[in-house]
Formats: sequence, C-alpha cells, structure tokens
Amino acid sequence: MALVVIGGVAAGLSAAARARRLEPSLEIVVLEKGPVISYGACGLPYFVEGRVKDAAGLIVYTPERFRQERKIDVRTGAHVVSISHPRREVVLESGAHVAYEKLVIATGARCDTSGITGCDQDHVFTLHTLDDAERMRRFIRERRPKRAVVVGGGYIGVEAADALRRNGLQVTLYERSQNLLLREDPFFTDAVRKQLERHGVEVRTGINITAIEPCDMAVVAAGFKPNIQLAADAGVPVGRTGAIQTDEHMETGIRGIFAAGDCAEVTHRVTGRPTWIPLGTTANKTGRVAGACAAGARERFPGIVGTSIVGIFGMAFATTGFSAVQARAEGFDPVTSRIEGSTRARYYNPSKTTVELIADRGSRRLIGANIIGDDTAGGRINVVAAALQARMRVDEFEQLDLSYSPPFSPVWDPLLIAAQQLKL
Amino acid sequence: MALVVIGGVAAGLSAAARARRLEPSLEIVVLEKGPVISYGACGLPYFVEGRVKDAAGLIVYTPERFRQERKIDVRTGAHVVSISHPRREVVLESGAHVAYEKLVIATGARCDTSGITGCDQDHVFTLHTLDDAERMRRFIRERRPKRAVVVGGGYIGVEAADALRRNGLQVTLYERSQNLLLREDPFFTDAVRKQLERHGVEVRTGINITAIEPCDMAVVAAGFKPNIQLAADAGVPVGRTGAIQTDEHMETGIRGIFAAGDCAEVTHRVTGRPTWIPLGTTANKTGRVAGACAAGARERFPGIVGTSIVGIFGMAFATTGFSAVQARAEGFDPVTSRIEGSTRARYYNPSKTTVELIADRGSRRLIGANIIGDDTAGGRINVVAAALQARMRVDEFEQLDLSYSPPFSPVWDPLLIAAQQLKL
Repeated sequence: MALVVIGGVAAGLSAAARARRLEPSLEIVVLEKGPVISYGACGLPYFVEGRVKDAAGLIVYTPERFRQERKIDVRTGAHVVSISHPRREVVLESGAHVAYEKLVIATGARCDTSGITGCDQDHVFTLHTLDDAERMRRFIRERRPKRAVVVGGGYIGVEAADALRRNGLQVTLYERSQNLLLREDPFFTDAVRKQLERHGVEVRTGINITAIEPCDMAVVAAGFKPNIQLAADAGVPVGRTGAIQTDEHMETGIRGIFAAGDCAEVTHRVTGRPTWIPLGTTANKTGRVAGACAAGARERFPGIVGTSIVGIFGMAFATTGFSAVQARAEGFDPVTSRIEGSTRARYYNPSKTTVELIADRGSRRLIGANIIGDDTAGGRINVVAAALQARMRVDEFEQLDLSYSPPFSPVWDPLLIAAQQLKL
Repeated sequence: MALVVIGGVAAGLSAAARARRLEPSLEIVVLEKGPVISYGACGLPYFVEGRVKDAAGLIVYTPERFRQERKIDVRTGAHVVSISHPRREVVLESGAHVAYEKLVIATGARCDTSGITGCDQDHVFTLHTLDDAERMRRFIRERRPKRAVVVGGGYIGVEAADALRRNGLQVTLYERSQNLLLREDPFFTDAVRKQLERHGVEVRTGINITAIEPCDMAVVAAGFKPNIQLAADAGVPVGRTGAIQTDEHMETGIRGIFAAGDCAEVTHRVTGRPTWIPLGTTANKTGRVAGACAAGARERFPGIVGTSIVGIFGMAFATTGFSAVQARAEGFDPVTSRIEGSTRARYYNPSKTTVELIADRGSRRLIGANIIGDDTAGGRINVVAAALQARMRVDEFEQLDLSYSPPFSPVWDPLLIAAQQLKL
C-alpha cells in the first residue's frame, strides 16, 4: 500500500520528499495533472520580466530526478477526478485507479476569473502556471503590445504590473477594493500606489472590472480560489474560509486524508482561528508536515502569522499579522505607531524605512506590522513575525536585544523606536 | 532635590532624557568627567578609517542642546571622586558637592592595559574615547606609519585592524586566546581569521603580548573593565562578573542608586544569570530604564541575549546567545547544525550565508546562533535574538512564518533549513 499525493508543485512534492526521508521503504506516488512539476510559482513574474531567461530555470526538479534519486513515482498528466475513501483509491481521468493507504491532497488554488467576461481571449492572461507565463512572454515578444491592463491589486497583480512596465509597456492596474496588496490599510496602500505611480504604472482602485474589452493585452489576477471540489466530493470537510479544514498535523476531517498547500486552511496564530492565506512558504511547510504525518510521524504545523513581502520597482513592502483595520475586524482593540527610521548609521548612506506596529490594547500584545523600505525590510518583518508567533507583549518587544553596528543598523533599531512609541 | 547622573555618554544621557520625558519638572544634573558628551563610541573605528570625516560628526548632542531643549544641566569636566549616600551627595574633584535624591551611575568601562607595559608611549593607542580616535588619526596623518600592531582580537581590535588596513598600513593582529570576536567557537573564529587574512591583515592567536616595543604604531584593545570603583567605594554591591549588580529596574543593592550601561550587570536571558557584555545598545536600553525608574516609573529591563554584529571588510559576522563551547560551559547539552544557504532566489544574484544554530538537547530550546554573510546577517541574527528572548523551542522556530519573495529571500530561509537539521 502506498502514500498517494495529489499535486506535484510545492506542497505535494514537499510532502512526498519528507515522507521518503522518514520512511525509506514506503511506496510513494505523486499525481500531477499538469505537464511539469516543482516549478517556483513565485518566480513567474520574474520570467515575464525577463530576469529569468529560460522557463527551465524555474523548474527545481524533474519527475525523472524524483524517481531516480528519491524513488518517488511522479506521474505528470495524471488528473485525479475522484477520491473513493471507502475503497482507498483515487480515479484518474484516464480511468485508471490508484490505491492508497494514506492520501495527501495538494490540489492548490486557481485564479478566479468567474466574475469577468472575456477572459478566454488570446490577449488575456492569468499568471498562475508556468504555461501561463510562457504564453504571456511569447505574446509580448511576438505581438509587442504597447499597453497592458492588469486586473487585481494583490501580489500577482502588482508583480505583473512591475514586470510589464519593465518591458516598456504602459500599464494600468485596476483593483476592486480600496486596498492594494490585500492589506486593509490606507497608509500602506497609499505607499504602494505612490511607488507604482512613481514608476509609471497608473493605479485605479475602487473599480470593479466585469469584462475584458479588446485591448493590447490584459492580465487577470483578481482573486484566488482553493481547489477543493475533489476533496469536497469525497466528503472531506471544508471550512468557513472555503479551504479544506485541517488539524495541526494537516490531517483533514477524514482520518488518513491530509491536505497541504494552497487548498488547505491553517491556524492564524494571532487569532487562533482558521485562515486561508495561500503562499509558497506555507505550502512547503504544510506539505512537509502532511508528508511526515502521513508517513506515521507526529509532527505539527502550529500555523502562520500572515507574513509577506513584495518588491515593487526595487522597494520592499512587507507585512505580518494584522493592520489596524483588519485587527479591529478580528475583535482586537488596535493601537498603532508609525515612524520613519534609518536603516544604518548616518555615515553609512542609510536609507529610510517606514515601520508601523500594531498592538492590542487589552492584552498589550503585538499583533501586526507594516514595513516599507530597502532590502532590510525582510529581516525586520521577520523579527515581528517571530514576536507574533511567541505572542510577545510590547514591553518585551521593545527590549529585544537586536544587533547593532554602524554598517548594518542604527543604535536604536526602527523596530524598537516604533515599539517605544506605542501608547498602550 | 535632583536626579544626578554620573556619566554623559550613552547610558547616562539616555537615563537623563528618559527621566525628563516622564518628569517635566524634575531637576536633572549630568556630571561628565570628559570634555564632550553623547558621542557615538561605536563610530570611532569609522572615524579612524576616514569614512567619518569630522569628529563632530560623531557627536549627537552638545551640552548646550541638552540644557536648552531638555532643561538638563549637563556639566562636562565634572569628575566625581566620591559618593556619600548617607548625605545623598556626590563630591567632585574640584571639591564641589552635588546633592541628589536619586542617583544613576553610568561610569562606563575602560580599556584594560594593565598587563602590558609600554602603553604610555606616543605611538601606542587605545580606541575608546573621541580623544583616542582623534589622536590616532592625527598620528596616522602626520607620522605616516607603515605598519601597525593591534593587540586584542575582540570587536574593537578587529574593527581597528580593518580601519588601519584601509588606510594602507600593514597590520598584524595579536590575540591572547584562540578566539576572535570573543566567540569561543573554532569555526566562527576561523571564518573571521580568513576574512582578515584575505584582506591582508596578519592574524596571530594564542600569543600573549606583555610589552609594546618600539614600532610604527600599536593599538591596544586587549580587554575591557567596568568602572566600578566609585560605586564600590560607596558600598554599592558588585557582582561576580565584576560589574555593578542591578535588579530588573536597574536599581543597585542600595535603594535610590541605579546603574546602567557598561558599568552594570544585566540578566542573560538564556541562562537567567547575571552577565556583563558591554555594548552600546544595552547601554541605551538600561539607561532608559534606569532613568525611568529613578524618576519614579516602574519600567523593567528583562536582560539581554548577547547579540552582536561586526563588519569586517564588508562581510558581516553576527552572533547571539551561546556558541556550542560556551553553551557547554554554561551547563547546557548543546546540539548544533551549520548550513550554507542563499540570501535570495538564484536568479537574484544571491550571496552565500553561513548559519549555525545551537540548541539545548534537554529543553529542545534554541540557545544561540552564529551567522556570517552579507547585510542580511543582521536581520537573521535578530530573528534568532527574538526567539531566544521568547525561549522558543526548535520545533516552534522551524515553523516561523518568515517573509519570502525572490528578490529578498529563498523560499526556505537558511534559518529554517538550519533549524530542520538540528538533530535533537
């Protein structure tokens, strides 16, 4: 009997690889419906940009390598159409049956284009698969579009706008809500907007695009949906977020069936409640835990705190936890402080960085941060992420023993200054 | 009655400024024996290097500014020779008495040249005060030494070697122990040595210099001692580390007398025991808490975890907590993992970074890290510092929700890879 994994990108392959490491003799089968496995989906905008020259550069492993080096039976073009848990088997589109003892569902998510007509035209793209990216790049090279419309101001939309602009296109980005990068925060959104506009991208928020008209080209990145139909049809419980419910071992409501990656819910450690924030890092981590537990180990995935970072024309926009607006919606009583600090001593050509911290008045816990600046924003948001995971109070956080030396930081790190200014 | 602060550099001025902010009407007197206050002592090597052109560039505040903007009576050239707590007064060298209600001792530390003869020669320098640095720079400019000997392989010694080498001198660095940067760790020390040698600094460890002979020039940075005599003479208890004992409010064993900065002990949060690691960041933080508590507030300083970073010819060497050797000496059962990782996605010109994590087998807690690499080492060591402060276990740490985007990090951060490889 075998461990069967449905999906051969980040979560699925992490699960398979981890199970193999823990159980050298286990039979492991990965069923991927697409033609390739293990590509770095987060790299797609950089392939469109042209920085990644060759699509092969985004593929980390080939099925052959998984077969030979790890003895994992990876099958591409293997589209699972149903799961029969009573029989412990999955059925492929080809009609073939594959038996399992333990199952990991890593079916990912998809671009949601349902509210927009005209998405099937040749000049309209999503940016979710390697095939999407290759098609888009070919189109740009061959058809030389002058203008592009990007629908959606989330990560993919903003990264696509950046990539297209760097290819010389005139870009207009439309976003349905008033927020960019999914952050309900007027200041942060405004900073993102200004950075896009400074580099020639026209930004229009509060506009709901319902149809793609004829134009040079359009990229639709207006929403993301977890692929849960296969699981739901098999009776696997789906949570309020719309993704598959999991426990801390990434096991679903049906024993023996695990879920990981963009199709699965995880715990938000700031609230303790289920959340769905599809990101590659979480896909890898949950895949790893699902694979370990499916192979019989008892590892746990404690959850996420909602950390992300995006580069926009060379500037970093990083967030973790909740913005003040989001925190209020989650039932917190948020207090914020926002400062502009220096990244280094003043004789080391410092750049400016904006640090906003959000704390909860009642518990005095830190519950979120927005950081904008140079490359150092990643390290700073990660410090806050660690503090959120540890449920650190502000009085603890403001005494963190952070490193200091003039080439690398100011003596009072902007994180500590922002913490001192939280009026709890 | 007044708050009197002895010492006008980092800790003393932080204490005075914080007390003023909390108590607008308090009389505050700062007594500094030197001619200037508030200079960035950590910037002295960069003044020697020539990057900081003007000594004035290292002075953050003048006494006049403190007097005018904060109504703090800052007196330079005011050398306190004794404290009479029964009379609540300090006595200056001039014979003047200054009465206090609360006292903050921020007398700092000094270079310990006691075991080395010949340190009083014109070509021999320490690098501790602005005056030291100015004298050294003038000497280099006027006498054009060709070779320099640096005695001591701690932070100051290594930074001085870097600064002198950049001025074109042939530099030989001697260190008494087998360790560089005070880190008892053969791998880390070896990496520091290689980086120094790669840039032309000759490094000789295990050599105890007891006399400075005639030579072009010598810098003695062979040890540091807390200035505790004044406090000890007044009956203030001194701890085993040789520095002034303090509680979490930075109050000494005598009520009403506080101590902060390089003369004071603090709690090491990894062991829970007193420690003495004189650094500017800790001086500022402890000064702030001492000032607040002396002014009647009840703030606390929970302690440090021993974080530091040094740049050596453009490469960062960062540590926090304990090395394996140090951990064993502290009673832990250390387990280590060391990996070489990438700082970014491979299509973003990543550089290599070495991450070593140290955990305790019994408690499974993370207890230290050494990180070598580019500018991102600071952010990564700070994440570990936050984890140490939170007493995080390895299984928690390896699931940290760290930010990821190709321009800023690889999908598996080197910190998480190193944590996964800890064999507990």
